[in-house]
Amino acid sequence: MEFTARQIAALLDGAVEGNPETRVNSFSKIEEGRQGSLTFLSNPKYEQFIYDTEASIVLVNDDFAPSAPVRSTLIRVPNAYASIARLLEYAGRLKPAPKGIAPTAHIAPTASIGADCYVGPYACIAEGVTIGANSRIYPHCVIDEGASVGSGSILYPQVTVYAGCVIGDNCIIHAGAVIGADGFGFAPEGESYTKIPQLGNVVIEDNVEIGANAAVDRAMIGSTVIRKGVKIDNLVQIAHNVEVGCNTVMAAQTGVSGSVKIGSGCRLGGQSGLAGHIRIGDNVSIGAQAGVIGNIDEGSIVLGAPAVNARGFMRSYAIFNRLPDIYRTIGALQRELEELKKERTQ
Amino acid sequence: MEFTARQIAALLDGAVEGNPETRVNSFSKIEEGRQGSLTFLSNPKYEQFIYDTEASIVLVNDDFAPSAPVRSTLIRVPNAYASIARLLEYAGRLKPAPKGIAPTAHIAPTASIGADCYVGPYACIAEGVTIGANSRIYPHCVIDEGASVGSGSILYPQVTVYAGCVIGDNCIIHAGAVIGADGFGFAPEGESYTKIPQLGNVVIEDNVEIGANAAVDRAMIGSTVIRKGVKIDNLVQIAHNVEVGCNTVMAAQTGVSGSVKIGSGCRLGGQSGLAGHIRIGDNVSIGAQAGVIGNIDEGSIVLGAPAVNARGFMRSYAIFNRLPDIYRTIGALQRELEELKKERTQ
Amino acid sequence: MEFTARQIAALLDGAVEGNPETRVNSFSKIEEGRQGSLTFLSNPKYEQFIYDTEASIVLVNDDFAPSAPVRSTLIRVPNAYASIARLLEYAGRLKPAPKGIAPTAHIAPTASIGADCYVGPYACIAEGVTIGANSRIYPHCVIDEGASVGSGSILYPQVTVYAGCVIGDNCIIHAGAVIGADGFGFAPEGESYTKIPQLGNVVIEDNVEIGANAAVDRAMIGSTVIRKGVKIDNLVQIAHNVEVGCNTVMAAQTGVSGSVKIGSGCRLGGQSGLAGHIRIGDNVSIGAQAGVIGNIDEGSIVLGAPAVNARGFMRSYAIFNRLPDIYRTIGALQRELEELKKERTQ
Repeated sequence: MEFTARQIAALLDGAVEGNPETRVNSFSKIEEGRQGSLTFLSNPKYEQFIYDTEASIVLVNDDFAPSAPVRSTLIRVPNAYASIARLLEYAGRLKPAPKGIAPTAHIAPTASIGADCYVGPYACIAEGVTIGANSRIYPHCVIDEGASVGSGSILYPQVTVYAGCVIGDNCIIHAGAVIGADGFGFAPEGESYTKIPQLGNVVIEDNVEIGANAAVDRAMIGSTVIRKGVKIDNLVQIAHNVEVGCNTVMAAQTGVSGSVKIGSGCRLGGQSGLAGHIRIGDNVSIGAQAGVIGNIDEGSIVLGAPAVNARGFMRSYAIFNRLPDIYRTIGALQRELEELKKERTQ
Repeated sequence: MEFTARQIAALLDGAVEGNPETRVNSFSKIEEGRQGSLTFLSNPKYEQFIYDTEASIVLVNDDFAPSAPVRSTLIRVPNAYASIARLLEYAGRLKPAPKGIAPTAHIAPTASIGADCYVGPYACIAEGVTIGANSRIYPHCVIDEGASVGSGSILYPQVTVYAGCVIGDNCIIHAGAVIGADGFGFAPEGESYTKIPQLGNVVIEDNVEIGANAAVDRAMIGSTVIRKGVKIDNLVQIAHNVEVGCNTVMAAQTGVSGSVKIGSGCRLGGQSGLAGHIRIGDNVSIGAQAGVIGNIDEGSIVLGAPAVNARGFMRSYAIFNRLPDIYRTIGALQRELEELKKERTQ
Repeated sequence: MEFTARQIAALLDGAVEGNPETRVNSFSKIEEGRQGSLTFLSNPKYEQFIYDTEASIVLVNDDFAPSAPVRSTLIRVPNAYASIARLLEYAGRLKPAPKGIAPTAHIAPTASIGADCYVGPYACIAEGVTIGANSRIYPHCVIDEGASVGSGSILYPQVTVYAGCVIGDNCIIHAGAVIGADGFGFAPEGESYTKIPQLGNVVIEDNVEIGANAAVDRAMIGSTVIRKGVKIDNLVQIAHNVEVGCNTVMAAQTGVSGSVKIGSGCRLGGQSGLAGHIRIGDNVSIGAQAGVIGNIDEGSIVLGAPAVNARGFMRSYAIFNRLPDIYRTIGALQRELEELKKERTQ
């Protein structure tokens, strides 16, 4: 399908700069632009590419001021990133979603599947499971006894949902994610350990996305809770009895230890780690690879391991990198002082 | 099912404080206690909640001295955490385990399945595999040629066991874990790499638990060995030819490089990493996110990356956080010394 | 099958030292050598074991000079590690590969499977998928619409390949790896986030190996690209729109953020992390657990988090460990200086 710059600008409430009849039929990255593709410029790091791109149309922010001639037709919009997201969503919706229950899906007699769901080949839906309308369960998902999935949710292939776990509406769970495995609880007994049964579950509220091969453990008692709008990237670990507040975002490979409570609107950088039983306030930013070992107040920005105030960490780290010089300076000071003392006693 | 405080105290050899006829039918976390639920107080961080909890019964340690009135009936026991574990286990055993071989399980003619096993839908059990009695192989597990699983073991959905690997008795392997993928071995050959075939296997002894989406690689030659009683959390990586000693515990996202030997009774914190070919003595504690690059003596406690003695690390880190101050102090010292020297020459 | 030292030396262009009729029928690690096994000594850390090993034959480097008597027959070769790799490959090839299409494999009518492929039980191959000759798709793999796999490639059990992704020739993808899940892209919208559809794909070129439970995300627009010869270990995260250059090697649990471009011939240590939108030159070495937050020049070696020049980091870290001493020294300097100043004013 083809669209003109005029049509796209109308859709986005944007302004065309150049030929409004320019036509595009695909998307491209700005550095890989080609005749007939539409791209965007949002991150200023990529500005250099706009002067050479072959893309026919470029979405730019209203205030973009080119420092050299641009051959492409521009569409100015208030927020180029949000606008490309809208176009991608529009394009994505044109793709038909799979529908119907595969004959090889293994659906227990007491399971209930809502209207217009897709259940792919070999998916296993155990006794007592309920799935809301318009959800998609891709091939090889396993949803164990008594678990539930809301409506409009998507479970990509090979997702496992353990017994009794609850997944809300409009959630997306990527391939290989495991929801509801046992929390890691053991009581020392002499030199070995006794397993502490994990009889709770996981509750995932609406509009949550969970990445590929991520793991969210069931609670020992009660629920591990992922609140509305949380976005969890690939390979993240959420331990038992954790609670993650609304709209918190966690980058890949983050690890959250048991019984941690994270507020809403937080941002956790990749590979960050949180020690058990701590509380993170709302709107906290935790840097990539940070190691948080204590409570963090609302609105804080922390870095490092153990994590401290970000500004302090960066200052200390800058000096860390000059430690060899500092060490030499101290040695010189010592020698000079010794000399002064020697003179004094003469 | 309901139980009275008297019955529970009898089971646990505990002492009731309050009404022995108080009845409960469920477990709750102390901060989510409700009428009819039993909870426990073990970690003193949670003491505040006992004064408000709605839970009908609270298990507490013998020496618990309330600082305010408690409405719940108490049961005093030597170790509240161990006691709740016993009760949970008791409750867990009431849940019937799945039994029988699903008709869609794909079991090769030369595979042997012990008595009273469960093999779920679509599980694949290849030629020459043996599975002991009373084991449970959940849906979508793949156990490749000649591998074996002992008796009383549980493999949750989507576990892959590569050819020739050996899993002992009473093991639990959580969903998505991969046992026996190739070790990461390549020989440089000009600018590219040649794969070094990994012809060894993985041997997992009895009573081992392995978390969701964890990976234990097969040896190049010989075996990667996980000894009795080891507990491995989610998303942990164990490279080829590693040996993990009895009853060692590894928190989530830990990574162990090739040919490392870890002693027994060790505790590895989450996201810690161990460099290749090193030896960790018995009863070593490695802090979360630590990076261990050399051998560690028995009984040591290490932190940091590169990891050093924990006490030393915490002292150095405390000063790290004051580096900007220290830097200013050194500058001041330099200036003062310069002044003294100037005066001297006058 | 048995081989003599003479036969093996002939195969490897090596020289026998000892009885050329010594026979072996298996491989062993040097510390687990037994009568009839062949082992090798390459890493000097293991030299101690050669004097006690029961192995019948040991491959050693040409320049190996024993410091005590060795009972085993030696075969001297230019590179013992490369030679054992050749023997392992030779032995590995003796094992017959599985062939044929399992009747329970779910292959869509428009999918095309090349000659001599193996497709295991319950594998799902969707509409429009093409698979080249001699490839092996193990049980429970899911290859979604329009994806393609070249010839001679192996997908171990439970691999998911999302729609439209491209995998080259002679690739190996280990169990549980997920190729082409959505990149982690969200646009803030008030307090919540709107998903940015990820309409690109993943392109994996030839001779790439990807470890168990690794995740490579699809691009938002265009492709996430893994170039020829790249080796990626278990549990690695590759975000959307990343490009990894030829023959780059990444150890386990490494995480690469979105839009990073990594050169060819790089080596990334385990658990290292790279921030988004940065460029890593060719032949860069990134230490284990390093956190890279800026561009890195060709040929650099970096360590630490934030990562800096390796030599600088190790020097600073050595001093970090002496910070308590240094702190005391500074205190002493201050006191002495105070004293000198006091004397001066008297």
